[in-house]
Amino acid sequence: MIECRTELRVRYAETDMMGIVYHANYLAWFEVGRTELLRAHGLPYRVLEDDGFRLPVLEVQAKFVRPALYDDVVAIVTRLREKPTVRIRLDYEIHARDQLLATGSTTHAFINLRGEPVKPPAAFTARMNELFAGL
Amino acid sequence: MIECRTELRVRYAETDMMGIVYHANYLAWFEVGRTELLRAHGLPYRVLEDDGFRLPVLEVQAKFVRPALYDDVVAIVTRLREKPTVRIRLDYEIHARDQLLATGSTTHAFINLRGEPVKPPAAFTARMNELFAGL
Amino acid sequence: MIECRTELRVRYAETDMMGIVYHANYLAWFEVGRTELLRAHGLPYRVLEDDGFRLPVLEVQAKFVRPALYDDVVAIVTRLREKPTVRIRLDYEIHARDQLLATGSTTHAFINLRGEPVKPPAAFTARMNELFAGL
Amino acid sequence: MIECRTELRVRYAETDMMGIVYHANYLAWFEVGRTELLRAHGLPYRVLEDDGFRLPVLEVQAKFVRPALYDDVVAIVTRLREKPTVRIRLDYEIHARDQLLATGSTTHAFINLRGEPVKPPAAFTARMNELFAGL
Repeated sequence: MIECRTELRVRYAETDMMGIVYHANYLAWFEVGRTELLRAHGLPYRVLEDDGFRLPVLEVQAKFVRPALYDDVVAIVTRLREKPTVRIRLDYEIHARDQLLATGSTTHAFINLRGEPVKPPAAFTARMNELFAGL
Repeated sequence: MIECRTELRVRYAETDMMGIVYHANYLAWFEVGRTELLRAHGLPYRVLEDDGFRLPVLEVQAKFVRPALYDDVVAIVTRLREKPTVRIRLDYEIHARDQLLATGSTTHAFINLRGEPVKPPAAFTARMNELFAGL
Repeated sequence: MIECRTELRVRYAETDMMGIVYHANYLAWFEVGRTELLRAHGLPYRVLEDDGFRLPVLEVQAKFVRPALYDDVVAIVTRLREKPTVRIRLDYEIHARDQLLATGSTTHAFINLRGEPVKPPAAFTARMNELFAGL
Repeated sequence: MIECRTELRVRYAETDMMGIVYHANYLAWFEVGRTELLRAHGLPYRVLEDDGFRLPVLEVQAKFVRPALYDDVVAIVTRLREKPTVRIRLDYEIHARDQLLATGSTTHAFINLRGEPVKPPAAFTARMNELFAGL
């Protein structure tokens, strides 16, 4: 399992009139989490895009346990539990104030610039083999 | 089953650099869908809030089949398949260009202004009994 | 002067914890306003993009007089007061509940796919000549 | 003049199909800028809200010089040039890749929980007197 922890501070823009973070914004936080996980393991997503690959979200699910609040520093814990095949699944936890606020997961697959499903880039596969061999 | 169909036009603001709608924005469309379903059945959400109730999202899941594109007119089909108990589950389909783009669901529960779980407002329960009796 | 009026309903996603619409969301409404103005005059922005043009925002300004609220039906009045040259300026008013909520303006210029400033598409110029000749 | 510099990384969610950051998102960055300026000078905005004050945006303007791109680390430079009276004006610069990307300003006034204009909180005024006396 590969894990990455990153933090961000909740923006006023992310709250709603319920006084808490609007639930859809957690999905952007999940994106921050997987971006940092990929970067931390030598696979910046920007480079994958520069190389002609896209990694759209095919599925997402999230459970909201406690609200995130304005100005909270939330920690995003992102986990890649299994070596990706054509599908890549990531799991997320959102923490703040020493509590679990939310959990979630996303599933992805690589596509090319024409939107067709493709195998992961060779560098991605090589790095994943390396990372999961060492576990 | 109660069903509601509503349409909206995709904003440039909702796209991302993949040239398609950023996936988190579908959750805001689901919100539009359930707002219109409630309104169509005499239970505008704004009134529920005015009466001191909140209906936060406890869970959400979505599958993205085909991308929504800028300027598409998307149809949101929202369904309440089962009479709500303390939990309310809604299902969604997003259509455009004669195709299914995405499906999803959300689960909700009523809370009061202190954030405590409460029974649905009496008017809500009465209306649901009425609607599901007639089916 | 060319004018276009369009309406939309305020989403919960657009509110913030002040209980009103977060100010940045008005900019997306301005975008809806100019999109509909262009469409109403036979120049859908999607077609301009398909033809290789982009019309980015160079400047924006807005004044917020009264808050927009959740579930309000807001009217966006968009005006093109002067025939565009290389610069295009649009003015906006946001109304709801029989009141002016906000005013604003944006300035744009056409660029090509390499990000270079270009003259407006011929069809755009021809249509603008036609529209402003008739005034 | 009081100045504060803070950084953030551009999210995919903040881009649009032009391949750049959607202009409205700069306004959320300006918000991050003023939040950090206030925090850096002992006046966290969250505390101002807890004390019953709100500081809505009355006016905003921005000029976009060069696009911000996905994954850029942008620096937000926020400046309070003049001691606030009933109006507070902040100026912003957005930098990335050693270049100025955008400038902007916002004007604010304190209101109470009923939405009425009020004088700034005493602690705010005292701190501003202190900060501007020392300049």
